[in-house]
Amino acid sequence: MSDVAAGSRRARGGGAARRAERTGVSFETARFIERNIPNFEILNEEALQIIEHNAETVLEEIGVNFLENPGALALWKAAGADVRGERVHIPRGLARKLCSTAPGSFTQHARNPERNVVIGGKGLVLAPVYGPPFVRDLEGGRRYATIEDFRNFVKLGYMSKWLHHSGGTVCEPTDVAVNKRHLDMLHAHMTLSDKPFMGSVTEPVRAADSVEMSKILFGADFVDQNTVMTSLININSPLTFDSVMMGALEVYAKANQAAIISPFIVGGAMAPVTVAGTLTQVLAEVLAGVAYSQLIRPGAPVIFGAFVTSIDMNSGAPTFGTPEAAHITYGAGQLARRLGLPYRSGGSFCGSKLPDAQAAYETANSLNMALLAGVNFMLHACGWLEGGLVSSYEKFVMDADQLGCLHHLAKGVIMDENGQGMDAIREVGPGGHYLGCAHTQANFKSAFWRSDLLDYKPFETWDEEGARDTQALASERVKKLLGDYQAPALDDGIREALDAYVAQKKAAEPDAFI
Amino acid sequence: MSDVAAGSRRARGGGAARRAERTGVSFETARFIERNIPNFEILNEEALQIIEHNAETVLEEIGVNFLENPGALALWKAAGADVRGERVHIPRGLARKLCSTAPGSFTQHARNPERNVVIGGKGLVLAPVYGPPFVRDLEGGRRYATIEDFRNFVKLGYMSKWLHHSGGTVCEPTDVAVNKRHLDMLHAHMTLSDKPFMGSVTEPVRAADSVEMSKILFGADFVDQNTVMTSLININSPLTFDSVMMGALEVYAKANQAAIISPFIVGGAMAPVTVAGTLTQVLAEVLAGVAYSQLIRPGAPVIFGAFVTSIDMNSGAPTFGTPEAAHITYGAGQLARRLGLPYRSGGSFCGSKLPDAQAAYETANSLNMALLAGVNFMLHACGWLEGGLVSSYEKFVMDADQLGCLHHLAKGVIMDENGQGMDAIREVGPGGHYLGCAHTQANFKSAFWRSDLLDYKPFETWDEEGARDTQALASERVKKLLGDYQAPALDDGIREALDAYVAQKKAAEPDAFI
Repeated sequence: MSDVAAGSRRARGGGAARRAERTGVSFETARFIERNIPNFEILNEEALQIIEHNAETVLEEIGVNFLENPGALALWKAAGADVRGERVHIPRGLARKLCSTAPGSFTQHARNPERNVVIGGKGLVLAPVYGPPFVRDLEGGRRYATIEDFRNFVKLGYMSKWLHHSGGTVCEPTDVAVNKRHLDMLHAHMTLSDKPFMGSVTEPVRAADSVEMSKILFGADFVDQNTVMTSLININSPLTFDSVMMGALEVYAKANQAAIISPFIVGGAMAPVTVAGTLTQVLAEVLAGVAYSQLIRPGAPVIFGAFVTSIDMNSGAPTFGTPEAAHITYGAGQLARRLGLPYRSGGSFCGSKLPDAQAAYETANSLNMALLAGVNFMLHACGWLEGGLVSSYEKFVMDADQLGCLHHLAKGVIMDENGQGMDAIREVGPGGHYLGCAHTQANFKSAFWRSDLLDYKPFETWDEEGARDTQALASERVKKLLGDYQAPALDDGIREALDAYVAQKKAAEPDAFI
Repeated sequence: MSDVAAGSRRARGGGAARRAERTGVSFETARFIERNIPNFEILNEEALQIIEHNAETVLEEIGVNFLENPGALALWKAAGADVRGERVHIPRGLARKLCSTAPGSFTQHARNPERNVVIGGKGLVLAPVYGPPFVRDLEGGRRYATIEDFRNFVKLGYMSKWLHHSGGTVCEPTDVAVNKRHLDMLHAHMTLSDKPFMGSVTEPVRAADSVEMSKILFGADFVDQNTVMTSLININSPLTFDSVMMGALEVYAKANQAAIISPFIVGGAMAPVTVAGTLTQVLAEVLAGVAYSQLIRPGAPVIFGAFVTSIDMNSGAPTFGTPEAAHITYGAGQLARRLGLPYRSGGSFCGSKLPDAQAAYETANSLNMALLAGVNFMLHACGWLEGGLVSSYEKFVMDADQLGCLHHLAKGVIMDENGQGMDAIREVGPGGHYLGCAHTQANFKSAFWRSDLLDYKPFETWDEEGARDTQALASERVKKLLGDYQAPALDDGIREALDAYVAQKKAAEPDAFI
């Protein structure tokens, strides 16, 4: 599959691409994670069967709403559902049967084919935070996000070794009109990074723009035949599919572009306050959403999504990194695997206002859980702060560094002769020291994961250098990365065509700010 | 078993105990964790067999050193080992056979029988940080620890809901003579807390003092028949058992008191740089140490310990919360379970100098891993800072709060009718809201774990209240807890006898400061 993308670029690129390659600089990016460790399975077979049975009961007895969408109602009726007004009652087994045409994994192509990702199976693809209207950094504090911030986060994502995906709305560029900002966001992902990215979902016409711009970047034929975007379709939990999100899903599914079909749940508010009840509703919603995607186009690539937090019953605030969220994330992973679908969940979730210890506890709880839960696509893998209201510059690089841990954890334990290390034990013997032995010398460079950010210095050195905390170290790293940034090579013709598309679309209608 | 301890106290207490109970205040402590979730098993059967085979090869071919300990050498020889000088070569299978008399789980009694703990099986007992010579708090910075600090940490441990155990050397009281500080430390655990505690291991005579003071607290007959201390016996990795630690082990094993037999390994320095090699050495060392405990007294309670960190090959500093440490912790748990022994590992490990985001990432990585690795006794579960050089006041309460997550995670998913929540889904329906429904009202108080420390407030409130980070919130909590502290009830006669024992022992020899 890489060959196709590479061939396509070579065919398009020519002399301009070669010139760009001479001036462009490429930063190292790790290949997406392929797990060599088991998944953590918190539910036994009986529990899984109860939840699956209950989810089908929900679909049949209670049903789901497809609002302001006569086309969807007609499709459901034709497929055998019992449609009453906007309520769709799906007979037991029908949704699961419809889901069976969705692929178990798929490749999302990047314009740099080395950065293609496979979503599904034992894989884990990491993408940055999505959606915050605010940004925060150490010096500037908390403020509304701008397109300049957006571009900075795309650059940071491009330069983050452990991040495989450029993401989507890394922050909301609130200084650009609501009806035009998707154009600038896509332009930034396409030109400032060569990693895979997401398309717009805020209106069906913006999804269509995303497809059109992708055709400029990849070539129309390539986009017709390959998946080049994975976009986020949230369900209005409980059990409601609105016409805006479904309209975007329809655009992407028809174009064979991938969609994450994702309940968005604050437990106790949009789903039952119990874990098993929430899992039941999540499964029912995903079954209905994925089935609908397959009614639009059988075989369209989709992902089983689960965005679930708990709630603080004292303040009503969503809470993150909690044990209940972990239970749901583990359980939903099992349900996704039994359905044969790629799974999206997890993220650098936290409720803290600052990139402090609270933020890190909650985030580490979430990241570890997501790896062991078998997540295949992790949106929000770095940079999330304050319950998703804020994209944090410092936390972006802090989390992105921790993602290195996940890569090494997923490798599992190497059991070959070198891994067993018996020669080393024999060489060193009782009371000896391994630092100088041949086995250590041969392996030390690759044996241990090493942070590029955290402090490992002796106390005295650290103290003399200013006794800086993690946020201060991260602030320095942000500046260094943005200072070192150089754009990846891009064909001049493609860039000009993207510029022209954005300019023409922007000129075609007045700014809207709601 | 609770009944025995309760009866014992009643028999001893009489009027004085009743008077003390009227004035004493008891703080809520959660029961030790009993897991209702599976363990995470990173090694397959083939890998486990390879490691077990290699460990036996190490014991037989390379052997282990028992230094300055002719008694140990004689015991090993009599048991069938090949003893050459101080090197003990243990024939394949012998150590494992000797280990079989050690119990798979045991009860450690507390003077308050409600706080007895069972160590082994599906249980997880949490104890605080052990060993740091320094303390740190927000206002006082980093400084040498004193007995006043020690008492403060015992008080904080006593008041921490999620901490089941008072621990041992919560910090080194460096203002008390080296040869006398164990007396003050034990006195503090025995009088300021009613949770179970650890004895001294720094000299065999100090272990003997620990047993004697326990007899004052619990009664001599009770101590003869029950385990009231679990103490930390570190192995001098690689493969070396020194006479100080073995001397303490001998005292405890003879007295039927529990010992953690624990390799202390910085990977790449005291063990091979690879995970499988380190696991092999850990298993060989524990097999030899536990076998030796059973040579001293068959049936003596012991714990399979594994304290393992990785090393930063650039600076030589130990590193914490790393993926390699996780691999070892998961793998050692499997080896311990196959050996039928309780397992000690994990902790609030971090290398950071401050209770900042680095500290929290590393700690959360370690705590989550330890829960899923099947750890039965977690020393250092809160308060560890700067690679174990510092006991942090703020981090103590931060970590102790996070331990609540582990309790809730371990409960697993409740699958009864109330857990399934189908009535709630029916009541609310598509587009509704669960906050007001009957199921939510009936369950919200217990449904979600809630931090007693972290910030869940709206941004504006948080900002108006001073925009405090986690360390500032923790500092406030430390002051509140120490201000609210009230000692648990204790029989006046017992207290006087403990005072007298300490005074007499202190008077009997001059201070030593090395």
